[in-house]
Amino acid sequence: MTAASPAPVSVLPAEALLAHWQGHRRLTRRLIEAYPEDQLFTFSVGGMRPFGVMVMELVSIAAPMVRGVVTNQWETLPPHETSRPRLKLEILKMWDESTAAIDELFPRISAGRFGETMTAFGMYPGVAYDLLLYAIDNEIHHRGQGYVFLRALGIAPPPFYER
Amino acid sequence: MTAASPAPVSVLPAEALLAHWQGHRRLTRRLIEAYPEDQLFTFSVGGMRPFGVMVMELVSIAAPMVRGVVTNQWETLPPHETSRPRLKLEILKMWDESTAAIDELFPRISAGRFGETMTAFGMYPGVAYDLLLYAIDNEIHHRGQGYVFLRALGIAPPPFYER
Repeated sequence: MTAASPAPVSVLPAEALLAHWQGHRRLTRRLIEAYPEDQLFTFSVGGMRPFGVMVMELVSIAAPMVRGVVTNQWETLPPHETSRPRLKLEILKMWDESTAAIDELFPRISAGRFGETMTAFGMYPGVAYDLLLYAIDNEIHHRGQGYVFLRALGIAPPPFYER
Repeated sequence: MTAASPAPVSVLPAEALLAHWQGHRRLTRRLIEAYPEDQLFTFSVGGMRPFGVMVMELVSIAAPMVRGVVTNQWETLPPHETSRPRLKLEILKMWDESTAAIDELFPRISAGRFGETMTAFGMYPGVAYDLLLYAIDNEIHHRGQGYVFLRALGIAPPPFYER
């Protein structure tokens, strides 16, 4: 006698993952706002990239990742576009456009699509949910580094638990 | 005529979230291993807590969070236990014990439990999946800070994408 495998226990609804991510994005936005404009593309610790470059990397991953999961079209910013210095207002505008794009695109990911394997940006193979988590984790990772840069500049960052 | 709400689209199986977390834990373990023992509880940037104290915070949250979700019993390390200097070997041993405890406890979280609201550690109200994501995010956040500390010490950290 054989038994069918039980259906996998599912952890969270898609809308909860979207809300979770947008909570993180609000916090990252507050960190960008708190950052001194003249240090965004100049200051760093230990030879790392400046925070402004990291933020542009996040912009280049976030909405394009969701769009890729939905459409299987993968667009990237050319690398020189992520390292070019920008005004804080310009970065915040790009951030807000990403936020709106994610809100529009994310609900279009179908139930089955979350578990499909694909190759993000033509380079990174993975299951859609892992690719989406990667985008979120990468934001948390670099924002944590931005926290240290801000502290090193003598500025208190917004609390991590406030979303 | 009324229509029933559609069942929420679910993003990822519980075992995928566990595998995702354990991948992060392997990376954090590699960062602890790469950290100079004599700097673990002394070095920091910008007046922040040393990385060893952050790691002990992670130990005090990770397995206790999962245990709390499973049993509704919330245990904490007393604060002086997270700031007390320890040998790297002792930290790695605690880390590995947490990893094993998480592997044992996580599969005992029932399907319904993930969506239940509870008060973690008697202080933090939230839905179980958000509380678990918080534990993971907090690890990524502080590990990102450890990356900067390590770079400031002139040491190249392990790559973020390697799990």
